[in-house]
Amino acid sequence: MTQHRIYNFNAGPAALPLPVLEEIQASFLDFQGTGMSITEISHRSKPFDAVINDAVGRTQRLLKLGDDHQVLFIQGGASMQFCMIPMNFLGEGDAADYVNTGAWSTKAIKEARIQGKTVNVVASSEDKDFSYIPGNIPFTKDAAFAHITSNNTIKGTQWAEFPDIQTPLVSDMSSDIMSRPFDASRFGLIYAGAQKNIGPAGVCMAIIRKDFLDRTPAGLPAMLKYTTFADKNSMFNTPPCFAIYTLQLVLKWLEETVGGLDKMAAVNQEKADALYGFIDNSDFYRGTAEKESRSRMNVTFRLPSEDLEKRFIETALGEGFGGLKGHRSVGGCRASIYNATGIDAVNALVAFMAEFEKKNA
Amino acid sequence: MTQHRIYNFNAGPAALPLPVLEEIQASFLDFQGTGMSITEISHRSKPFDAVINDAVGRTQRLLKLGDDHQVLFIQGGASMQFCMIPMNFLGEGDAADYVNTGAWSTKAIKEARIQGKTVNVVASSEDKDFSYIPGNIPFTKDAAFAHITSNNTIKGTQWAEFPDIQTPLVSDMSSDIMSRPFDASRFGLIYAGAQKNIGPAGVCMAIIRKDFLDRTPAGLPAMLKYTTFADKNSMFNTPPCFAIYTLQLVLKWLEETVGGLDKMAAVNQEKADALYGFIDNSDFYRGTAEKESRSRMNVTFRLPSEDLEKRFIETALGEGFGGLKGHRSVGGCRASIYNATGIDAVNALVAFMAEFEKKNA
Repeated sequence: MTQHRIYNFNAGPAALPLPVLEEIQASFLDFQGTGMSITEISHRSKPFDAVINDAVGRTQRLLKLGDDHQVLFIQGGASMQFCMIPMNFLGEGDAADYVNTGAWSTKAIKEARIQGKTVNVVASSEDKDFSYIPGNIPFTKDAAFAHITSNNTIKGTQWAEFPDIQTPLVSDMSSDIMSRPFDASRFGLIYAGAQKNIGPAGVCMAIIRKDFLDRTPAGLPAMLKYTTFADKNSMFNTPPCFAIYTLQLVLKWLEETVGGLDKMAAVNQEKADALYGFIDNSDFYRGTAEKESRSRMNVTFRLPSEDLEKRFIETALGEGFGGLKGHRSVGGCRASIYNATGIDAVNALVAFMAEFEKKNA
Repeated sequence: MTQHRIYNFNAGPAALPLPVLEEIQASFLDFQGTGMSITEISHRSKPFDAVINDAVGRTQRLLKLGDDHQVLFIQGGASMQFCMIPMNFLGEGDAADYVNTGAWSTKAIKEARIQGKTVNVVASSEDKDFSYIPGNIPFTKDAAFAHITSNNTIKGTQWAEFPDIQTPLVSDMSSDIMSRPFDASRFGLIYAGAQKNIGPAGVCMAIIRKDFLDRTPAGLPAMLKYTTFADKNSMFNTPPCFAIYTLQLVLKWLEETVGGLDKMAAVNQEKADALYGFIDNSDFYRGTAEKESRSRMNVTFRLPSEDLEKRFIETALGEGFGGLKGHRSVGGCRASIYNATGIDAVNALVAFMAEFEKKNA
């Protein structure tokens, strides 16, 4: 079945690996000989147990997790995590450090404060429109955790290295999880809405260090406690089966086809270098993030005028490049180049950008 | 593409209409000419707006909703609603009536009480193992709402008619929504995990009467407030796009192919009559729910011994009838005959049951 496909630079939901989509399509009426679609099988069945356990196992291997971390799947996206994190991890008298690097960090801080929790905003890049990642941050000594947003989709910034502190880190990695290797042992919680790098919308991966599970207070509603998910392998109630299944296939692709996170990171670096390199050599396009804080996932850039940006986005779409519009809150242009967007797509985009510049400069 | 398909009697996730699955499959790599999968398009795009708005419009028409109700899509299943309902609708000094008709009602009550809310359990059928729906219920006069579970998947009971009281009703309709027409105007909130009658796991439909939105207190986390979903057409954050899309196609099938809820209810009655009629004429099979409380969605029955039940379930599976095992908490057998399970499947099951009886009685 040959079908029309575009180069997809969406910020999320975003491109998925074509072999994953093809496998879902081929088996959609009959999942592994069950005579049912993956959307029709029971979550209390051996075939689905195999799916979720495989997703957990691949996550453990890809991120080199030790036994002290547990992999959970929760609904509600990162936004639900903004709420659950302070609810579970900040008891009476506790305070947490948050670094504010953009809209998502700001929301995370808001959701903690609305619960009456004590938040120290120990650094912020709001002074320069969130165009950089702060350095030399005065983290508090006794904070319950330090919260960061590892990659900022809207402004196109990313932590090159994570803070080297004793306080356990908590990070929203929605937009760069599985894009590069890192030392997970320092994180009390890593969470990631799947719809950028690891799957479709509708499931959030949460990787929790087991000592953080002990912090959950008694008396919380079941669906708001991490322990509920940890105790039941994320199946206290019916999980989002299709989203978990798709995520499992994406991780399989990452492990078996790409070859793991070192290789994925190299490809992602190559893609980012190609795009930023072209932008830096152009007087027509201009990157918006400070160079040392640039994201390898979301390349944000401007053209000489908003009119040209509008024409650029429209012309690109007509030529098969989708998703290049900047976030509605900031305008401009953005190319999201997550794991599933190949170097071929980036090279084609660069060629298009050069052509557009030639015609419109 | 011809693929192996079984008769699916799963309790949830459950059978979906075959034309819906085929449409998803056919367009899975290229949704409506976008050159992207439905799992890859932005939720902030015209094609997805059309999907969610169509799902809302069809819900309004199928249930004949007035302007005073709003249709929302929330993650976390009915279990999250168990938590959100008391959080949003029970203020200081308020109390709610709950009718306890089984495991799901029991969980709903627990989630209200854990928040310190006042719950009056005004009736319970626990005295007879939840095998019936209570009558002549002494509802409280000034309750904030009266909560019922319209259909009980585990014990196979269903409210034939809803309580005729002034208090606004709140109902978990996860397992019978869209199976029959009813007067929605008396409900402050109707909620339904999609994975039984209207879609895949991963999205919960919530139909809220607008005066109930006014009850939401200030100071709740964003993802736990109904107003957050109402204010943003369920897209405050990234919604579970694929689940909503599938749900939209199921509602389209219900409206355009089946012909609406009157016709669906007639088919469902025919299916239930065929199965219960056969069971009642047999000395081998025995229904477990009281006759006047029987569910038209979940037909629970026993065989003369647990050994025979085990053999029945295994033999059935071998002959292409899946999902006939009773809930793990109660054992026995159960045939879930939701909207998407056709009369052909029920007739085939009855023929199989007759044959099995002949061989094993």
